[in-house]
Parts: sequence; C-alpha cells; structure tokens
Amino acid sequence: MHASDAIQRVLSSIGDLDQRAMEMARRRQDSLTKPHGSLGVLEEIGVKLSGITGELFPILDTKVVVVMAADHGVTQEGVSAYPSEVTAQMVLNFLKGGAAINVLARYVGAKVHVVDVGVAAQIPSAPEQSLRAGGATCFTQAKVRPGTANMCKGPAMTRSEAEQALAVGIAVAREEISRGAKLLATGDMGIGNTTASAAVFCALTGIPAIAVVGRGTGIAEAKVAHKAAAVERAIQFNRPNPLDPIDVLAKVGGLEIAGIAGVILGAAHLRVPVVIDGFISGAGAMVAYRLNPKVRNFMFPSHLSEEKGHKLMLQAMALQPMLHMNMRLGEGTGACLAFMLIEAACRIQKEMATFAEASVSTKLEV
Amino acid sequence: MHASDAIQRVLSSIGDLDQRAMEMARRRQDSLTKPHGSLGVLEEIGVKLSGITGELFPILDTKVVVVMAADHGVTQEGVSAYPSEVTAQMVLNFLKGGAAINVLARYVGAKVHVVDVGVAAQIPSAPEQSLRAGGATCFTQAKVRPGTANMCKGPAMTRSEAEQALAVGIAVAREEISRGAKLLATGDMGIGNTTASAAVFCALTGIPAIAVVGRGTGIAEAKVAHKAAAVERAIQFNRPNPLDPIDVLAKVGGLEIAGIAGVILGAAHLRVPVVIDGFISGAGAMVAYRLNPKVRNFMFPSHLSEEKGHKLMLQAMALQPMLHMNMRLGEGTGACLAFMLIEAACRIQKEMATFAEASVSTKLEV
Repeated sequence: MHASDAIQRVLSSIGDLDQRAMEMARRRQDSLTKPHGSLGVLEEIGVKLSGITGELFPILDTKVVVVMAADHGVTQEGVSAYPSEVTAQMVLNFLKGGAAINVLARYVGAKVHVVDVGVAAQIPSAPEQSLRAGGATCFTQAKVRPGTANMCKGPAMTRSEAEQALAVGIAVAREEISRGAKLLATGDMGIGNTTASAAVFCALTGIPAIAVVGRGTGIAEAKVAHKAAAVERAIQFNRPNPLDPIDVLAKVGGLEIAGIAGVILGAAHLRVPVVIDGFISGAGAMVAYRLNPKVRNFMFPSHLSEEKGHKLMLQAMALQPMLHMNMRLGEGTGACLAFMLIEAACRIQKEMATFAEASVSTKLEV
Repeated sequence: MHASDAIQRVLSSIGDLDQRAMEMARRRQDSLTKPHGSLGVLEEIGVKLSGITGELFPILDTKVVVVMAADHGVTQEGVSAYPSEVTAQMVLNFLKGGAAINVLARYVGAKVHVVDVGVAAQIPSAPEQSLRAGGATCFTQAKVRPGTANMCKGPAMTRSEAEQALAVGIAVAREEISRGAKLLATGDMGIGNTTASAAVFCALTGIPAIAVVGRGTGIAEAKVAHKAAAVERAIQFNRPNPLDPIDVLAKVGGLEIAGIAGVILGAAHLRVPVVIDGFISGAGAMVAYRLNPKVRNFMFPSHLSEEKGHKLMLQAMALQPMLHMNMRLGEGTGACLAFMLIEAACRIQKEMATFAEASVSTKLEV
C-alpha cells in the first residue's frame, strides 16, 4: 500500500472527544471534596482523558516513550554544537539505559521505544544492550534513509520519504497500542534537529526564523543569527507550501520530526492520549495538527522548553505547558515527567471522596 | 522553655549550603551524557540537594507532607465561600484518606501528617480513621487556641500564641526527621486563610491588598474588593511591625501560617529540604524567610497558584515555580506533585551515564 493512502485513512479516522463521558467526568469532579475547579489543570486532564477513552476512570498504567532518531544534512552548515556522530552514539546510550530518558522512564515506570528512522551511521543490532536496560527499552530499525540532505542546498528528502517516515511513526504507535500501551509520549534524538524544527515551524507559519531559532544543544549566542540565516536560506531555496505539511516536512524537515508526527497521528487514530515533549516534538505536533486539527483532542503538552521558539509553537496549537523547568534536552524527557501529572490526574478523579461521602459542607455562595 | 528562646536557637543554627558538595555535583552533572545545563531546573535541584545534604547522591525516599489546620476569626467578615465548619470536616476527610492530598501522597509514596494547630471545633481522636487511610496518615493534636480572633477588630492572636504555633511546626518537623523523613512539604487547611495569608504578605511588604487578594476557595469576583478592604482594615487597625515577622503573624496571621513557618524553620535547622506549596504556604515561607533569609537554602518552590498574590510572593523570595497547573486548593497538593520532580532530579544525578562511560563525543565548541 502506498504510504499516502494509509496516512489519508488515518487522518480521516481521527475523531471527536466523547462529550457524554466528559460531562460525567465534570460532574464527578464537582462532587469531590475541593472547591470547584481548584485543582485546575489536573481536573481538565481527567475530563479530557474521559473524553478520549469514554471511561470515567481511565487506567493509564502502560506507558511508552517513543524516541525517534535521525540525522540532518544541515549540520554541514555549522549549526550545531555537537558532531553528527553523537546521534548514533546516543542511540546506543539509550539501548544501554544510560541516557536521561532511560533514567526518567525507569522512575515513572515507562518503556522507552527507540526508533532509527534515519540515523546516518548503521546502528549495530543490539539485543544484548536492550537486555541490560532491564527490558524497559526496545529498538526498531526503520531507517528511511541515512540522514536528510542539506536543506540549504536542496530538499531535505523526497515527499515519498517523508510519507514513509510518517508511516513508521503510525506503525510504531499502532504496535505499542496493540501491546497494551495506554499512554504514549514523543521524544527525539538527532544532531541538527532544532534547526530543522525551526524551519518546519517557520515554513508552516511564516514567522521569521530569528524569532524562533535558539541555541539548541548550546551554540554560542553569536552563532544564533548564523543558524537563523541557514533556516531562512533553506526556506527560500525550497519554497515549501505552507498549506501542505508533508511538503514542508520533505523540503525543510527531518525524518524524526516526520516520525513524531506519525506517532501522534497513530495515537489519535486509535484514541490513545499522547504527550508532546519539547521543541522537536512540537514541530512534529505542528505537522500533525496542520494535517488534521482534531489530533489536538488526543495531545497533552508537557513542558515549556528553554529553546526560544517553543513558546510560539505551543501558542500556535493553544497548548499550555504544565512544567517550567528550563529544560532543552529532548529525548522525551519533559513528556516523561508529565506522565506523572497525568497519572496523578487519573487518581484524583477516581480516588477522592465526594462531599456526601465525607460529610463536608458545600459552598455558601457562588 | 519559653518558645521564643527555642525559636531563637533554631534561627541562629540555620546554615549555608555545602559549596564543596555542590561543586562535586556540578562536575558530575557536566560529565553526564547531555549538553551542559540542558536539564535546567532538574540539574539545579540535584546540585542544591547536594549542598543541603553534603552528599553527591542524596536519597530522599522518606517523604512527608505536613498539613497544618486552623480556623480564622476573620471569616465573620464574609470573606470566604465556605463555612468555618469545613476546616474540621476536611481534617476528618484527611484522616479518612479521602482528600486530594491523600490521593496525591499515596501516588507519590509520601506520608500525610495532619496537625490541629488551631481548629475551632474539637477533632475527635480518630485512630480508626487513620488506620483506614492505610497508615499513610497521622494526626497530631496541638491546638494553640480554637481559631484566631477577627483581625479586623483586634489582633488575630497574642505574640505568645504565634510563637507557640511556630514551635509546634518546628517540633513536628523535628519529629518527622527523627523518624527518618528526608524530604518535607508544607500544606494547609483553614477556611479564611487566603485572607490571613494576604494580610501577612501585605504587612511584610507594604504591597496594597488589592494587588494580592484573590478569590480563595471561589468567592465571586465582585467580592474580592470587599475581601481586600478587610485585609486593609486589619492592617490599619493592628499596625503590625513589618520588621518583626512574629508581630505580623500574631496581629494579622493565622495559626496554620505560623505552623508552616515553623516546619520550614525546623527543616532548615536540621538541613532537610522542604517543598513549599501555594499561597498559604508561601505566606508561612515569607515569615520564615524574613526571620532568617538562609532558610531559602533549604526551600524548594513547587507550583504557581491560581491565587492572585502568589506570583508576587514567589518573586519576593526569588523562587521560580516549576508547575503551572492553575491549582488553588492548598493542602500541600502542589508540593506533593513537586516531590516527583525532586526525586527525578536525584535519579538523574545518580543514574545517568557519563560521556566517558557511554563513549559519546563531547562538544565541538563553546
């Protein structure tokens, strides 16, 4: 089957929130021993999860962070503080359980699913390492191509490759959900990917690169203008169509950004909540959102990244970040922390006593 | 022993952060497989915890939320949406394990220690209920007086009573730490206490009440001016000395606010980290901070409350909230969520692989 047919089918299947379940959840929240609305976002999360699952008491015990890894030809322009080889090295670090995302996933009881959707180097098949990570990490080899081309000199990839990378994300989401995942998160690894993410966001919105481009893994402040110029050059050279998100992905995007968009589409298609990490995941989310705004029904924001353009990205999707931790690592680390807030919200909706059960007096006035 | 002597001794004992341990922690953070500083506040927390404990790998497995409960005479002015009787009813709800703080504490594996430091009604001794809460809740009867007097018509309490309530907080912190607590949090219950907390903050800072007073448990927007007028009246009538935090506590404060300040002082005295909840805990923290600014070495902020004045309070102590959840419940609920972020920070510092261990290339440039 051609990828674009499969993608079209997924897009057209994405549904609405279950209003009846949400109304039940809202009534439940208002009956609990707290002033109405006083748990703020925790209450909203509970209600939205009911709208997604159709259940008053959703159980989200099986959690998976999907980390999409790929390389970027645009690193040839000197936009990154680290060499490209770090992408593959970090993939091995994920499989050995030594990266930040492994530590946080272990802490919150989530699995890490690493996907090579376009790493330049070959990743040795590594069952031994996966085992050492305690079964909590798995790896999928799904390389669409070994890194993108330099988008300053031509399209990053072909349309077909972008669609293939999207399909990889959809397939991974479907696989994890069929194995029992109730809550997904997106993560990324790819030297050069803040440049590509900025390009995707700028191409989709028309916002100038200088307002979006940040320091990524830590380039000097003086190099930010150089990085922004590379983004502008890539957009001017390739002229992606802002009304065609797949064209944007192909011309100035990245394979992991496409993979992340695919995970979000796959989760929305199967009505499973998906938590969006930071700037790179945000670019993937923007693509998914532009392909079908209803994906927003299934997305949860996590943190506000330190990366400059992230705030604008969240605003473009009307998402409010819960965590303000000045993080800018990616890998899904912010999303993983948000898993705990989402689980806490489920517990609140289920376990709190009602005013009647606890014999607590209700409000004097409104 | 007179309370003020004991308090003075605690105040003069509060120490500095261990700079050597912090330097070791910083070096460790910089050796881990992530760009320097890319985990933001998670890194800062790890370093600060090393400064508090003197250990490179602090273990904070035993966590306690201390919930100080008391009533407020100022409710006679019609400043609250709920009747005073709710304070005692909610204390019973805590002991039965049905309140939001119980649900969140169970989720994060923390104990809830409820203290009656000044509830108007008598709390029946309730071993049975505590048992039903699964041993995760305990109760201390330490009523200094059955609620404050109406601060619009005279001082809320005597100076001696304020000192007694401070001493209760110090004693509870000491008791929990002697039993093994490695991480404390403050929480509150007390109908009327957003009014008293605003009064404490305004009296300490000179900020006008209208900039600080919010909707509390949910009074109508139109009643906020009436509530602010009550705060201004209380301050004008009692003329608390802004340079004497105990005078402020006594004249326009609350017994639970004093108790919370005491918990913070006790934790700082014994070099145990303490997480500050929202607006009422913030008022207690302001008192502790003004008594000795070094308490800040041991405090961690948690969330930004929906209550209007909380942002100003955090700014006054130069604390950055991690969680933006529009919560305004109190009880320690925001602090309890932050426990997870603090534990995650410890895990990062301990469990991540270094660049050398993972054979990951380091930075190209700075």
